[in-house]
Amino acid sequence: MSLAIIMPGRNGEGLAERLKALDGGLDIQIWPDIERPEAVEFALCWQPPQGVLGDFPALKVVQSLGAGVDGLTEAIPLGVTLCRTVSPSLKTDMRDYVLLAILAEQRQWDAMAADQAQGHWQPRHYRRGGVVGIMGLGELGQAVAAGLAGLGFQLKGWSRTLKRLPAMETFHGPEQLEDFLADLDYLICLLPLTDQTRGLMDSGFFAKLGKPCYLIQAGRGPQLVEADLRSALDQGLLRGACLDVFDVEPLPPSSPLWQHPRVRITPHCASVTSGKELAKAVYHNYLAMCQGLALDQVVDPEQGY
Amino acid sequence: MSLAIIMPGRNGEGLAERLKALDGGLDIQIWPDIERPEAVEFALCWQPPQGVLGDFPALKVVQSLGAGVDGLTEAIPLGVTLCRTVSPSLKTDMRDYVLLAILAEQRQWDAMAADQAQGHWQPRHYRRGGVVGIMGLGELGQAVAAGLAGLGFQLKGWSRTLKRLPAMETFHGPEQLEDFLADLDYLICLLPLTDQTRGLMDSGFFAKLGKPCYLIQAGRGPQLVEADLRSALDQGLLRGACLDVFDVEPLPPSSPLWQHPRVRITPHCASVTSGKELAKAVYHNYLAMCQGLALDQVVDPEQGY
Repeated sequence: MSLAIIMPGRNGEGLAERLKALDGGLDIQIWPDIERPEAVEFALCWQPPQGVLGDFPALKVVQSLGAGVDGLTEAIPLGVTLCRTVSPSLKTDMRDYVLLAILAEQRQWDAMAADQAQGHWQPRHYRRGGVVGIMGLGELGQAVAAGLAGLGFQLKGWSRTLKRLPAMETFHGPEQLEDFLADLDYLICLLPLTDQTRGLMDSGFFAKLGKPCYLIQAGRGPQLVEADLRSALDQGLLRGACLDVFDVEPLPPSSPLWQHPRVRITPHCASVTSGKELAKAVYHNYLAMCQGLALDQVVDPEQGY
Repeated sequence: MSLAIIMPGRNGEGLAERLKALDGGLDIQIWPDIERPEAVEFALCWQPPQGVLGDFPALKVVQSLGAGVDGLTEAIPLGVTLCRTVSPSLKTDMRDYVLLAILAEQRQWDAMAADQAQGHWQPRHYRRGGVVGIMGLGELGQAVAAGLAGLGFQLKGWSRTLKRLPAMETFHGPEQLEDFLADLDYLICLLPLTDQTRGLMDSGFFAKLGKPCYLIQAGRGPQLVEADLRSALDQGLLRGACLDVFDVEPLPPSSPLWQHPRVRITPHCASVTSGKELAKAVYHNYLAMCQGLALDQVVDPEQGY
């Protein structure tokens, strides 16, 4: 019985060490050095090379390193359970990222930095509170909502299916999108990447915004049509945007987004699972698999999250 | 019975209009056009010219426009009641400012802006949580503490006299300062300016810090010895500082603080009382004075807050 770590370009050895520290008896193989593929029953993956999961005839569980399972839903063999990793700090980190992005925009934090560089004392008007719309009401969305509610923001939520949540007006499905977007000061995207969310934020979407709004995109890059974002900014449908995820990552040097005066770019670092928490979550699910118990964070391949 | 508005360089007319909207019958005089000084019983002040309050023989109440009463404690005639203005949004605005300063430091927000300007994709390590020490546990300090506690920060508080507060280890007086400073990741100053707090943050103070700490100064400028701050940064006693208040405001163009790579400067805008809330607070106290009722936010001239 073997646990495979398949995350090209990432520190598989570091994770293996953390797992060994939890249980010295674990049999761990790190891709590409998989010497006994027939023994692999559990695979921890992040962007695995195409087809690699087909090499493991005994595979039972695939766990994604992240909260998303993009690229895994189609790749896992039939009958294999797919899980994701949502650690406690993944939720609070996302909450903090969104808070920071909102507060920085409200306070004109970047403009004050430019003033400082010029030695220029220029008190600036600041915004307070406002209506925040959250798209995606899973664990991350709910953690963000709780943080924002505690600071007095008015909340709206939108998801694929109806969810009833405290202190939030909720909307669902394409038919309620326009009502959801009608009066937002801030729009947060925390949706998973699915067939339904790919390309969601396009010109038609932005045209539904009832007033100029600030977008925080911390879902997945392909949900946002980047050319349409730029048009929405130019047309004043959006006041600005803070983007953490992109169609292509790293964002290519040639992208016009880098220099857009109303776009803030962060390099997919809104919320990063710590090695310690990742090892703990993986070991928990590995043990559950061995003992025939229920796994955490099982993904419905049809829904894609 | 007349209400005088004495705030040189600020929009006295705007405030007078807001007060008139609340009560069209108010008799309002705006300095320097005080035609009937003998009628003035209530004076709203911000940095009043020296001696001006001595011109009003019937003066009963002086209200400071801000949360601080610096420069007013010595100026008010004997027997006159001194009040300050702490509106609800003054507290939440200060909470948000402190949150923003902490989160921006944790996430290397400014460094990411510099990366963006270079078109450089560079994920950066971020800090989480930590121990936050708050100096000054009045209304602003408690509002900041509540916000930080909600986000999971560990809190310590320090004040002149002993205060017991929820979810916070509290310290008081000079003799407990060293214990308070022993293990802080963030230090927030929200103290009023008094004889005891003037020059408080000097080299001896910074030497008591148990580990490199990030300072957020949103109290009053003269509490911080600016040359000693620079030394503390150079010696590594402080990781960095976010300063909203200064010895001299506006901060002179010649100040070396402007260009210090680990100093963030904001132009005394952490928390600004809105005109609407100010008018409401002033009118409340004016009515209370007329009716012989208790006034809000009365200041003890001995304590200075």
